[in-house]
Amino acid sequence: MAVYTRLGAEEMDGIIAAFDVGTLTSAKGIAEGVSNSNWLIETQDTGGTSRRFILTIYESRTEVAELPFFLGLLDHLAAAGAPVPRTMHDGTGASHRLHRTPQGDKALALIEFLPGVSVSEPTPGQARAVGGALAQIHLAAADFPGTRANSLALPQWQQLLNDCGREGLESIDPDLARLVERELALLAANWPAGLPSGVIHADLFPDNVLMLGDTVTGLIDFYFACTDLLAYDVMVTHAAWCFTPDGTQFLPELSQALIEGYCAVRPLGDAERAALPVLARGAALRFLATRAYDWLNTPADALVTPKDPMAFARRLEFYADPANAGVFAGGILA
Amino acid sequence: MAVYTRLGAEEMDGIIAAFDVGTLTSAKGIAEGVSNSNWLIETQDTGGTSRRFILTIYESRTEVAELPFFLGLLDHLAAAGAPVPRTMHDGTGASHRLHRTPQGDKALALIEFLPGVSVSEPTPGQARAVGGALAQIHLAAADFPGTRANSLALPQWQQLLNDCGREGLESIDPDLARLVERELALLAANWPAGLPSGVIHADLFPDNVLMLGDTVTGLIDFYFACTDLLAYDVMVTHAAWCFTPDGTQFLPELSQALIEGYCAVRPLGDAERAALPVLARGAALRFLATRAYDWLNTPADALVTPKDPMAFARRLEFYADPANAGVFAGGILA
Repeated sequence: MAVYTRLGAEEMDGIIAAFDVGTLTSAKGIAEGVSNSNWLIETQDTGGTSRRFILTIYESRTEVAELPFFLGLLDHLAAAGAPVPRTMHDGTGASHRLHRTPQGDKALALIEFLPGVSVSEPTPGQARAVGGALAQIHLAAADFPGTRANSLALPQWQQLLNDCGREGLESIDPDLARLVERELALLAANWPAGLPSGVIHADLFPDNVLMLGDTVTGLIDFYFACTDLLAYDVMVTHAAWCFTPDGTQFLPELSQALIEGYCAVRPLGDAERAALPVLARGAALRFLATRAYDWLNTPADALVTPKDPMAFARRLEFYADPANAGVFAGGILA
Repeated sequence: MAVYTRLGAEEMDGIIAAFDVGTLTSAKGIAEGVSNSNWLIETQDTGGTSRRFILTIYESRTEVAELPFFLGLLDHLAAAGAPVPRTMHDGTGASHRLHRTPQGDKALALIEFLPGVSVSEPTPGQARAVGGALAQIHLAAADFPGTRANSLALPQWQQLLNDCGREGLESIDPDLARLVERELALLAANWPAGLPSGVIHADLFPDNVLMLGDTVTGLIDFYFACTDLLAYDVMVTHAAWCFTPDGTQFLPELSQALIEGYCAVRPLGDAERAALPVLARGAALRFLATRAYDWLNTPADALVTPKDPMAFARRLEFYADPANAGVFAGGILA
């Protein structure tokens, strides 16, 4: 939620000129993304037509070497008709450029602006649409040539939680260390192999979905996208959409609608269906791991408030209870 | 540079609905303003026409009681043809509303979006246009009925600098305490009385001016506006525009153009011209005072970097040198 790089209008003019999208008429730094700087840009061409874009300057966390994967994926999905923003290419055909700043060269990209807002209290109709859009990108990415290992998979969850330490986890909640140990052991022993894999979004929270009514107008922020199990992405999205944010309440109508919406576009196979409970526990543990690590490693006086790890510990307990498997996977197991 | 209040799309829908400006199609939190939360909002009416607005939620620093002055001023100036954004009024005619948040009720306003960008290396043509726009709001505000005392005038500079303490000022620069004492005494003894007064912007830095080429498309951020000497506002704007940001270099072409641009719309009287050097020293000391205070009172690990007070100490030294009076006021004394 910040703009880390300062850009004057003259510098912005120079950046925009490389993309042949008209002249700059407005630029507002926007409070989106936690590790990049973003501006909402407006240009006007010689015919007077206005266009809007998101200009992103990648700060240190995003490796420039990975941008061809992320940006190429957007173009591939958009070309296939999926609701994702296209990237603009410069005169040389490049989808990203290097920009000189006082802190060194930084990569930047100019990405199509899409209308829509992020809902915070989704309806079943909206969850259904999101399930469908997720399946759509899974199908559309099938012939995308790029691959990227998931840098937040089981070995990294283990590492992050190990770095938290037993005492650290217990300082968050007395039962958390025990829960984490049990789940890490279970997932290591039972993580499914051989399920359909491909490019996944891996972070499809409501913040990363633009909607108008029940229509998905944009899936955004693909910077965790990677190659992994498609059904795992379904359960990441499930964990993100089908509970109250604090994890205390499961929302069965959203769950049913999300999974039905997904299956209407890409039916889950039998092996995927059978694996959903363990994938759900993995999805919950993934966010528990990063949130617990950030919780323990964010200075008390930082302006960024770390998110509560217990919100995902609660989801994990829910998914781990065998009595719930029929409920949360009801729409597909029926 | 932050968004302090979180608003879901559903809550935003409700806010927008009160203003009869169509339905919400986009909302991006923007990194503008240091004490308020701002969103760039887009709506669409039933005919398909898009409109854009800035939604501001006023955090604790802005007194709700002062909003009728600030927002009424915008409407008054816009109605007179000055380049400032209009405010939207709700069904009851109100220009601001109270919105319930978990942190208590907060005031909000919906303000017209204006195109344009903020320049960081102004040209003389741009400085001339800014001078003209400043004079335009001074003239247009003449029949505005509201008044507001300047809460950052000489008594407050004294208080802020007193709070910094001699040791604090000397920790910034060994000569700073002596400079401040000399100037406070001089300004207290020589501050002009009886000059034309009215509503002034009081903070017209390049960040608060939107431009397209040499045209001013918007003066924004009137939250320091108050009733004070018009010629003082000219010198605040002069201090803001006519030096390199670090204050090491005076830019005579910008100075001449800014003051000529102002005088072309509202000629300065003889008494105002004579007072410019002392008003300039006051303008420089005003920003030195707030910056020195923030410099000494911002935690070292805060995400907001305080601005260098010495940038305005250098301007102050420049203005205090009698050899420069003819130079910086050359365009008008000639």
